[in-house]
Amino acid sequence: MGKRIYNFNAGPAALPLPVLEEIQSELLDYKGSGISILEVSHRSKWFDDVINEAVERTKRLLGLGDDFHVLFIQGGASLQFCMIPMNLGLKGRPVDYINTGTWSTKAIKEAEIQGKDVRVIASSEDKGFSYIPDGFTVDKDASYLHFTSNNTIKGTQWARFPEAEGVPLVCDMSSDIMSRPFDAAPFGLIYAGAQKNIGPSGSALVIIRGDMLERTPHNLPTMLKYATFADKNSMFNTPACVVIYTINLVLKWLEETIGGLEKMDEINQKKGSIIYDFIDQSGFYQGTAARESRSLMNVTFRLPSEDLEKKFVREALKEGLGGLKGHRSVGGCRASIYNASGVEAVKALVEFMKEFERKEG
Amino acid sequence: MGKRIYNFNAGPAALPLPVLEEIQSELLDYKGSGISILEVSHRSKWFDDVINEAVERTKRLLGLGDDFHVLFIQGGASLQFCMIPMNLGLKGRPVDYINTGTWSTKAIKEAEIQGKDVRVIASSEDKGFSYIPDGFTVDKDASYLHFTSNNTIKGTQWARFPEAEGVPLVCDMSSDIMSRPFDAAPFGLIYAGAQKNIGPSGSALVIIRGDMLERTPHNLPTMLKYATFADKNSMFNTPACVVIYTINLVLKWLEETIGGLEKMDEINQKKGSIIYDFIDQSGFYQGTAARESRSLMNVTFRLPSEDLEKKFVREALKEGLGGLKGHRSVGGCRASIYNASGVEAVKALVEFMKEFERKEG
Repeated sequence: MGKRIYNFNAGPAALPLPVLEEIQSELLDYKGSGISILEVSHRSKWFDDVINEAVERTKRLLGLGDDFHVLFIQGGASLQFCMIPMNLGLKGRPVDYINTGTWSTKAIKEAEIQGKDVRVIASSEDKGFSYIPDGFTVDKDASYLHFTSNNTIKGTQWARFPEAEGVPLVCDMSSDIMSRPFDAAPFGLIYAGAQKNIGPSGSALVIIRGDMLERTPHNLPTMLKYATFADKNSMFNTPACVVIYTINLVLKWLEETIGGLEKMDEINQKKGSIIYDFIDQSGFYQGTAARESRSLMNVTFRLPSEDLEKKFVREALKEGLGGLKGHRSVGGCRASIYNASGVEAVKALVEFMKEFERKEG
Repeated sequence: MGKRIYNFNAGPAALPLPVLEEIQSELLDYKGSGISILEVSHRSKWFDDVINEAVERTKRLLGLGDDFHVLFIQGGASLQFCMIPMNLGLKGRPVDYINTGTWSTKAIKEAEIQGKDVRVIASSEDKGFSYIPDGFTVDKDASYLHFTSNNTIKGTQWARFPEAEGVPLVCDMSSDIMSRPFDAAPFGLIYAGAQKNIGPSGSALVIIRGDMLERTPHNLPTMLKYATFADKNSMFNTPACVVIYTINLVLKWLEETIGGLEKMDEINQKKGSIIYDFIDQSGFYQGTAARESRSLMNVTFRLPSEDLEKKFVREALKEGLGGLKGHRSVGGCRASIYNASGVEAVKALVEFMKEFERKEG
């Protein structure tokens, strides 16, 4: 086996090494079944235990009440963009969105395709999505209020969630789910593609409050109704078994090795301090997000020139630091430091940044 | 590690052991990338190679012309049940179906939910779906003609596909894709959940002819349009990377170890002969499908009593033969012998059946 690198990709992203080692060790024989987890029937006791554990761990980690259902739905966050207005839009009532970047924009577009009365009640487009909007008013007439909790491309994150005023919040938490504790009570629906903070690609985690299930129109296709998944514990049809299995191992690592979301948040705060404090004192690296809106998950920054940025990414990879190129739509550099990137990874990155600045600055 | 068993589950099902061993060996470091295939970015060169290889292997194995697109779409065959009428139903033209069991029935239901003019032009429901219909007339007015090539629950399979008369055939090949060669020219669309013959659960393989892409109405949600996947090589959003990676390894095994679909068909014919010849001469085991409609993938049979069936399944598992219980909707016994179940697995099963008959018959 070769050397493992520090992986700063934005998603699919780094997974905890003990999780990968456990998968590897039981890949040919899952818990004495004599078959691989890649072969195990979703109707077996083995897989029932896996999915039930993943659901229970999600509820415990997020402190969810009994009124929430935890679902696993294929198709990523992108399929959720269309399922949400389809299922949760109320007749004659608008659907409200806050636009903080590419992913919010895509979610808005899918509601518009369906002919919904879409209102964008706040946006940070005026400054290139470099900040999180504030001071907007929530309209109680809305079916729901949708926002994106963390924006991977521009590196911004909601430090505090919007006040809901009784309107169900709907949130795309793909890139910061399980990175910190929060109060789920105001949320009608939370969704997250697994491939950033909780697993490999191939499943979205969807958390839906029971009353939201009653909104679904009867004539929707079976696979596009949340109730189909809620009624059958996400097994109306065959789910992505190996993906859910891996998610469960990541959640186990969060509970048993890290010690829960308060602890995870402390570690993420520490990682953020290490890299942002360094950037702030440097004249060489420039952060691109407004300071009070900066993301603890995706650290976006520029170097003095595009040539230096290319060299930075190239040289970093040689030193075992991968995935530091910014999103192709904005350029620059980006270090994604999700849960599975530990303090040591961030320290190694800052050391490299210092050395690169010394040589090139 | 414990002992591997012979896995006769209907899906998720057995995978070739060399495929599992390759996955295991490179799980922590994919081809010198320093990261796992579970962590690799779908925008990387590594994953580009994986998906391009999987597409090319599919085209070679099935002898597909350049007018076909090979797509990977999450949500299984069940999501295809709704995407097909949505995308391929022509305005003012009916959508035609042949009903050969549970899965056809579900496909029909999803077209009906959408208010399509659904015609069931043939059915084997009169005899409990125990045979494949014959002697029906295809109507050239149809948008398409949908059928299910192999029926896992009742153990029936189309020996020869229906004559299309120019109407695009649409086929659910979830349970016998890549088990034998066939002429793809009359097909507008072929789809298959991966978890039976070509991989783990978590992706459908969809093969669509170019002219079908033009049928899609403009106002469909982005993730429900086939063109979204065809235009972006199945990477409009993050695909199920580890599932596609495993599919590619299974296709590689089919090409390089088995030697292609003619060879695979020979092996499957041989496996079928071994078990059906044994059942036919036995007075103890009774096949449930009409002889000329029997499936080479799912062998369904009964024993003299339900108690004996339970005992059979239980004792078989003790001997390392798993997954022999019939589908919960019909009872009895079922041995699913997809591509990855070799001749030696079928021989071991028949030996056990003989011994069980000797003791209990």
